[in-house]
Amino acid sequence: MKSAIAFAPASVANFAVGFDLLGFALEGMGDTVRVTRIEEKTVRVRSIEIGEGLDRESFVELPKEPEKNTAAMGLLEFIREQKLEYGFEIEIKKGIPLGSGLGGSAASAAAALLAANAVLDRSLEKSALIKYAITGEAVASGARHGDNVIPSLLGGVLIVASEENTYARVALKGDWHVAVLYPGFRLDTRRAREVLPKTITLKAHTRAQTRLAMVLAGLAENDPEKVRQFLVDEIIEPARASLIPDFYEIKRAALDAGAIGGSISGAGPTVFALTQGRVQAERVLKSMGDAASTRYPKHLRMVSSISAEGARVLK
Amino acid sequence: MKSAIAFAPASVANFAVGFDLLGFALEGMGDTVRVTRIEEKTVRVRSIEIGEGLDRESFVELPKEPEKNTAAMGLLEFIREQKLEYGFEIEIKKGIPLGSGLGGSAASAAAALLAANAVLDRSLEKSALIKYAITGEAVASGARHGDNVIPSLLGGVLIVASEENTYARVALKGDWHVAVLYPGFRLDTRRAREVLPKTITLKAHTRAQTRLAMVLAGLAENDPEKVRQFLVDEIIEPARASLIPDFYEIKRAALDAGAIGGSISGAGPTVFALTQGRVQAERVLKSMGDAASTRYPKHLRMVSSISAEGARVLK
Repeated sequence: MKSAIAFAPASVANFAVGFDLLGFALEGMGDTVRVTRIEEKTVRVRSIEIGEGLDRESFVELPKEPEKNTAAMGLLEFIREQKLEYGFEIEIKKGIPLGSGLGGSAASAAAALLAANAVLDRSLEKSALIKYAITGEAVASGARHGDNVIPSLLGGVLIVASEENTYARVALKGDWHVAVLYPGFRLDTRRAREVLPKTITLKAHTRAQTRLAMVLAGLAENDPEKVRQFLVDEIIEPARASLIPDFYEIKRAALDAGAIGGSISGAGPTVFALTQGRVQAERVLKSMGDAASTRYPKHLRMVSSISAEGARVLK
Repeated sequence: MKSAIAFAPASVANFAVGFDLLGFALEGMGDTVRVTRIEEKTVRVRSIEIGEGLDRESFVELPKEPEKNTAAMGLLEFIREQKLEYGFEIEIKKGIPLGSGLGGSAASAAAALLAANAVLDRSLEKSALIKYAITGEAVASGARHGDNVIPSLLGGVLIVASEENTYARVALKGDWHVAVLYPGFRLDTRRAREVLPKTITLKAHTRAQTRLAMVLAGLAENDPEKVRQFLVDEIIEPARASLIPDFYEIKRAALDAGAIGGSISGAGPTVFALTQGRVQAERVLKSMGDAASTRYPKHLRMVSSISAEGARVLK
């Protein structure tokens, strides 16, 4: 009986200047999926295990039906398109809080695909899995958004063109780290989309374009001051901040402690702050934690580098 | 009597995916300005000469009053901020058609500043001239837009953050060339702004952001197919195309002849097409010319590489 286990990391989508198109993977936190080949040409979700330290109740509604489960959905498409003569049984171990804005469903999808790929008679390139990963994610969010799942799969900071099933890697120099604080409550992705403006002014669009381009250049040039000046979001962040009480206090604490910039991770409520080096990230994280501790005594927090590798097969 | 002459090239702003923020300089076509130190702390426009092959009548309204002339305006600011004890007399030789969308006023401003800088007792770095250049341009367009003048001054493909008086250089690999066709009629910049939408949908914004990021990545990676796929503008181009009869026919001719992409140069009516290599650019230009010849028998056209140097002191 062929089986493989893969791990895929949590990820930070949007990255302040790239709503629905930029994302990067974290190290340490992630989902693990075991995939076993079965005779029927279908996908069975055998088990969903909740990792230590995560709130079990929040996962109760995680669906096992393949056509509602992110991890399974990508595999169904994979079986169909690759014309496989068999199916997969999957066992998911969640390490990412549900509805945290850290790409939990994306990580499950990425890990499931990578593990399934490992049990094929002839494995595909990692990049060939992209379209199945985005299809899986579409189940979770109701639209094609690959800005979590592609970074989780491939690592690095990525520009993701979800409609076109393609991506580009952002040239990254320097020792970038991230401080991440999850307040501990679940924010529904659909709700986080509802609060967004349907239209924006052309001026706001141009300012946002300028910031995106300058941040990409700043990352490529390893120019932290350029990134600091332009890592600003005046479109998405103001709309979603109202859903995250004390968001501005936590962000302010990060900037006061020396963070290059920070914003909401994905749809939230997780707050991320960008730093150079682990030492600065630790200091920034402590400051964020202090600012969050009164309202969010049960928050989770971590420091991470930007994962260069993304998802990996464990065995 | 101290004097210097500088040349600054024409430029293509917007570049399809970077409205009001991206631009690059051309080779060959440009404005030349002689600057002479005078005792009075002011700027005098001594003469404006119209280069060969340009329509003299279209330049009649080019103002000599310093506070209305782009080239003079930047110098006035330069004198004030640098606390100079003298002024400048300038002689402008126009090589760029007025209202063509090729950054004519920007080139005059860039050349004037560079020449003035050359007659200082102690010249500044080229990059120190940026804010004066943008101030000069503001006279012409009514707002701070440096996406012509900064590329004209510094060369290369630049991301220009006009409000912040700063820029970043787009990493550029490969032998990029441009085919440029000026239909021969003047399009007023203010009119070209009036037709733009005041607001756009968030979806259109996100698609535009994705295209901008992917094109920047494609240029840096020298991946023409990526640039081809994403060098598309669905916001500005459709609004301005109505001001340029046969625009779509000319663009179609460029693409059919193998251009990587193309759009309106700056505010128009000039049409540019991007190619790899001069041979392809020549073929594309011929195709564009054929498409334009019936409606625009007096059009001007040229092939150019992207100027790496920008403005230069001639003597």
